[in-house]
Amino acid sequence: MLKAAIDTEIFKETVDVISAMVTECRLHINEDSFSTRAVDTANVAMISLDLSSSAFSSYEGTDTEIGLDINKMKNIVSMMGKEDTLSLDLPEGGYKMEMSFGGYKYSIALLDVNTVRKDPNPPNIELPGKVIISGTALNNAIKAAALVSDKIAFGINPEKGTFYMEADGDTDHINLELGTDELISLVPAEARSMFSLDYLKDMGKVMSKADEVEIQIGIDHPVKFVFNIADGNGHVEYLLAPRIEAD
Amino acid sequence: MLKAAIDTEIFKETVDVISAMVTECRLHINEDSFSTRAVDTANVAMISLDLSSSAFSSYEGTDTEIGLDINKMKNIVSMMGKEDTLSLDLPEGGYKMEMSFGGYKYSIALLDVNTVRKDPNPPNIELPGKVIISGTALNNAIKAAALVSDKIAFGINPEKGTFYMEADGDTDHINLELGTDELISLVPAEARSMFSLDYLKDMGKVMSKADEVEIQIGIDHPVKFVFNIADGNGHVEYLLAPRIEAD
Amino acid sequence: MLKAAIDTEIFKETVDVISAMVTECRLHINEDSFSTRAVDTANVAMISLDLSSSAFSSYEGTDTEIGLDINKMKNIVSMMGKEDTLSLDLPEGGYKMEMSFGGYKYSIALLDVNTVRKDPNPPNIELPGKVIISGTALNNAIKAAALVSDKIAFGINPEKGTFYMEADGDTDHINLELGTDELISLVPAEARSMFSLDYLKDMGKVMSKADEVEIQIGIDHPVKFVFNIADGNGHVEYLLAPRIEAD
Repeated sequence: MLKAAIDTEIFKETVDVISAMVTECRLHINEDSFSTRAVDTANVAMISLDLSSSAFSSYEGTDTEIGLDINKMKNIVSMMGKEDTLSLDLPEGGYKMEMSFGGYKYSIALLDVNTVRKDPNPPNIELPGKVIISGTALNNAIKAAALVSDKIAFGINPEKGTFYMEADGDTDHINLELGTDELISLVPAEARSMFSLDYLKDMGKVMSKADEVEIQIGIDHPVKFVFNIADGNGHVEYLLAPRIEAD
Repeated sequence: MLKAAIDTEIFKETVDVISAMVTECRLHINEDSFSTRAVDTANVAMISLDLSSSAFSSYEGTDTEIGLDINKMKNIVSMMGKEDTLSLDLPEGGYKMEMSFGGYKYSIALLDVNTVRKDPNPPNIELPGKVIISGTALNNAIKAAALVSDKIAFGINPEKGTFYMEADGDTDHINLELGTDELISLVPAEARSMFSLDYLKDMGKVMSKADEVEIQIGIDHPVKFVFNIADGNGHVEYLLAPRIEAD
Repeated sequence: MLKAAIDTEIFKETVDVISAMVTECRLHINEDSFSTRAVDTANVAMISLDLSSSAFSSYEGTDTEIGLDINKMKNIVSMMGKEDTLSLDLPEGGYKMEMSFGGYKYSIALLDVNTVRKDPNPPNIELPGKVIISGTALNNAIKAAALVSDKIAFGINPEKGTFYMEADGDTDHINLELGTDELISLVPAEARSMFSLDYLKDMGKVMSKADEVEIQIGIDHPVKFVFNIADGNGHVEYLLAPRIEAD
């Protein structure tokens, strides 16, 4: 069961964060939060999102798992005015959720949870290098790399105390190196891994709105991006598997 | 014959209103107005438009019927500056109309009126329910319904004194009910009819610019939208046939 | 060899001017300027561009000829911030140019100059009619003509002291005549030539940013457009061959 009201802008932000990764997900509702954990169809990227009940203007929930069509949510969200409040109403055992805002009442069929992929188990990995950077700077770096290649390396140079990203195309090369002056913080560690820009481009667009994104990296390991949404009442982790660095 | 000058913004508005419905029309020019009445190719929607000579900064006309290519008008209109005045010059018995603005002189071939569909006879129908609503609210309702379905029902609940619209998709449903607080006025009557959103979407875009749109409805009858353009110097009626409500 | 720094906005403007005409070019670097002269693949249009060292905030160059991929430049330019300064670094005999801005370092492979068309010889032509007009007015005239036709005639009426452009479509016609009031200057001479709008549309977009464009025309001769970029530190000439005026 869920009976809650939320600022439409916060709901939009939440839907955008999920839609960068998957088109449908299982949403776990409980007493004090609303969360999802999902992997993309190719098993390359994973999202964990928690939205605390404090992100809502009113919230009443009991343990439920529902299947959400994220594309449909994106369409509905596009109808909401900035000033509107969205009410969500899901009766105990219901197959439809009612979404009301600005006089509109949408009654939305939920997906059968059994048709939606099960929650992935988050891998147990150690990522020693940590960098905090503005979301805009991160997104710009991703866009710059996409001009010359389809993959990007992120790394830390522990001697110089810098975070770098590099992309190598067939003929061109791009490099960006940021020192502690340009970063919000850096935990130095030997780290360098390469990633597909296909995934990063969508994730970058979403992360560009975050003031701070923590990037956790290792050597030929996945990268984890950690950031907040909903004025700090929501927490997101994106995990992306590395690509083999061909020679 | 026509020799007239008009603010380009008013002319643009007039062309937009017609182009939501048809790509060509017969334009009737007479001493004190400029009017058209046309049905779309599928005979589902009809427009009646009257633009009084008072909408023009100067106007001299004698009884003439000309064929206008509305798509071509849209292209030319897109070249006009906001500050420009458009001069229209059609000699007695001429086959070309001269359109001048901002130094440009366009000489436009008219369509042979015999190749353009004859004026339809407006059907004699009684539509007892009447609602006046802002054009923006009407357009938003149409866009909201289009997310879940390809058809929409408009209706009046005379007991509650509300106007409603409903759309049913395969799995989802949307409902909007507006009371006298949210409407400009309402004449209650038993009324409910269903319409194709295909037509309504184009009409909605145009009507969104009107402060007030009168919606006239009945039971399984056409809907009529009545609104003004050109600061009240132009009058438009859109008529749309109902769709069968399948069970 | 080239080692220079330039405002990114000026570099963008330069790249746009070249890309309206060709997708690759030979760039001639010498002690006090940076220039290119190129024809389009169909041999119909030619660009000559000179950017003086005074357009740069710092400039050191020695005689070199390099091959530039203009499309690639456009992509990189799109990443530059308005406030950034672009550093260009090309070592003596190097095959790669380094472009740095806002922390990014792009290393760009140059084209082998032997694979890029040789510089054309500018034809020796006399164009007696000269008109100076704002770039915006010129671009608007080109767009207006494109509505009715795929070619445009430019001409001068020496008796009336006017510059005109005309376009004839199958059924429609457009005419624009500008007197000395609307022109910046006019050197009267018998002149009328016709041109393909295909080429002019791209050139018009670029020229719309110039305060003044000098148009040089003759009778069934090419047209030359002369304008400045980079706050007067760059000089551009576009030459366009005439089309046969069919009867």
